[in-house]
Amino acid sequence: MAIIIHKKDIETITNTLDVVKAIENGFIAYSIGLTVVPPVAELLFEKPKGETHIKYGYIKEQDYAIVKIASGFYENTQLGISSSQGLMILLSQKTGETKGILLDEGYLTNIRTAAAGALAVKYFAPKSIKGIGIIGSGIQARLQLRYLQKYTSCKQVWIWNKNIEGAQKFKEELGNDFNIQIAKNTSELAQSCNLIVTTTPSENALLKAEDIQQGTHITAVGSDTPEKQELDSTILQKADIVVADSISQCKSRGEIYHALKNKTISSENILELGTAIQNPSLHRTNENQISVVDLTGVAVQDIMIATAVYDTYKNNKLKNNF
Amino acid sequence: MAIIIHKKDIETITNTLDVVKAIENGFIAYSIGLTVVPPVAELLFEKPKGETHIKYGYIKEQDYAIVKIASGFYENTQLGISSSQGLMILLSQKTGETKGILLDEGYLTNIRTAAAGALAVKYFAPKSIKGIGIIGSGIQARLQLRYLQKYTSCKQVWIWNKNIEGAQKFKEELGNDFNIQIAKNTSELAQSCNLIVTTTPSENALLKAEDIQQGTHITAVGSDTPEKQELDSTILQKADIVVADSISQCKSRGEIYHALKNKTISSENILELGTAIQNPSLHRTNENQISVVDLTGVAVQDIMIATAVYDTYKNNKLKNNF
Repeated sequence: MAIIIHKKDIETITNTLDVVKAIENGFIAYSIGLTVVPPVAELLFEKPKGETHIKYGYIKEQDYAIVKIASGFYENTQLGISSSQGLMILLSQKTGETKGILLDEGYLTNIRTAAAGALAVKYFAPKSIKGIGIIGSGIQARLQLRYLQKYTSCKQVWIWNKNIEGAQKFKEELGNDFNIQIAKNTSELAQSCNLIVTTTPSENALLKAEDIQQGTHITAVGSDTPEKQELDSTILQKADIVVADSISQCKSRGEIYHALKNKTISSENILELGTAIQNPSLHRTNENQISVVDLTGVAVQDIMIATAVYDTYKNNKLKNNF
Repeated sequence: MAIIIHKKDIETITNTLDVVKAIENGFIAYSIGLTVVPPVAELLFEKPKGETHIKYGYIKEQDYAIVKIASGFYENTQLGISSSQGLMILLSQKTGETKGILLDEGYLTNIRTAAAGALAVKYFAPKSIKGIGIIGSGIQARLQLRYLQKYTSCKQVWIWNKNIEGAQKFKEELGNDFNIQIAKNTSELAQSCNLIVTTTPSENALLKAEDIQQGTHITAVGSDTPEKQELDSTILQKADIVVADSISQCKSRGEIYHALKNKTISSENILELGTAIQNPSLHRTNENQISVVDLTGVAVQDIMIATAVYDTYKNNKLKNNF
């Protein structure tokens, strides 16, 4: 019988887990070739506009395969409903039986994405962060800032958002924990920060190469389709280190896809996250290098977080904690 | 909040529905172009061998999109577990929210497949059935025989199965309702029957063209991948009418895929089920024609049956019947 876990319990459990470590192990397994992760399946809606991505796969020799259904319906906010929705399903690798359903409503996708961002900062950001630039002001902007705190003590934050109201709300909500300034434009932000995280669904580049300072690290989180783009492709050309969460996936979606198409980089210059984090010679070697980590989202992240939540729930259930 | 419906309730509800009619309406919607049904997503397992298919899509202007996860793990029977497993998920077309989860364990896939077989018989079988040949003896063999009873009074049944024990068990279990004979081979079966249903996961053709009598209708249910094949491709060449549940899908999987690859038929000779059932001039015009309907399984079937079960459950719940 499938165990069904609701969002509230998922949130409680997730707060007890070292998600960044789990995601790190997942990317390593992925780059070593221990995972089976077929291409993303996609379902598009027109009225209203929406998209559902199905990511699925497994790590060999483990107990479960995961199917993750995650939707983005950006007009939901007008109805007071979260724009991201979804659930994760655990199947037995041995029998195909449905073992668990995590009704996370997109929560775990947000968390595992933020954890990948923190991982990028852990291995590629410069040692001394003088300013953190956040582009976008949604849930992912907030989570990225929270999660990367594990790896920097910097509290100087610049925020830029297309609608200034979003930036103001962000500042109000996080202003107690950070010294937040609203940037007039992304040029001002880039000139003030050497750690930048982009978190929007933009289809036009928001950051220009000429504004990026030496020594800057950029984590590009927003683009996960062939249409979306947050970084001008010449930024990847200017970068000393370009990392893809999945090289095969980044050839067809995300910032690297655009840079390859525009021929500003070539594929032999791209490192894969799970390979690069294992090999210190592939990390930043000085404080002047520019690094870009492009995160398009890989099913192995869903596998790791879903399995961790499910196993913890099951163990706690045995102890009657749920 | 998602409504979760368990297998027992799903079975109870399904028995009250006119599933063949629902599936018929689904195929018509599909062939008219009212559906959005992207290619099947697939996850393969090696130890033990297993496959998970994810079918997903929606009919425009309806309330729900469906994601169906269906697995086949053929070694499960050694563990006393059904080889087919699965569940269906209903998402709101307007917001992406998870509205329902049908924990059917593969049951609805079996039923909607049997209903498509009945639909093939309804429109393409000869008027006078003298013998029904069933190839394979699993759950789908049983369901096909049960469902096609709606459209014929014939009780003369020939069964052939690779393992004779399976055929004997089939005969024991259904012997009260049918006059069942176990065929020595598929040639004997084909020579005794003018309605044949093939239901195996065979990767080698089981039926030969020379054995097929004039006036025979064949529903090929088993093959739903590029590897599986139950009919020699020359049967499709010999046939007067060749129907695909989905022309686009049958170009890459099933019997029609093999026949196209072997050049025994060309694509302009293939009708699509939802088009053909609407147009009597495309049906059998005499009792000597040979017809083949190739069923690879289309997400629109899952959409129709999942929506019917879900809506019925919700309405009954309002009346406190569950």
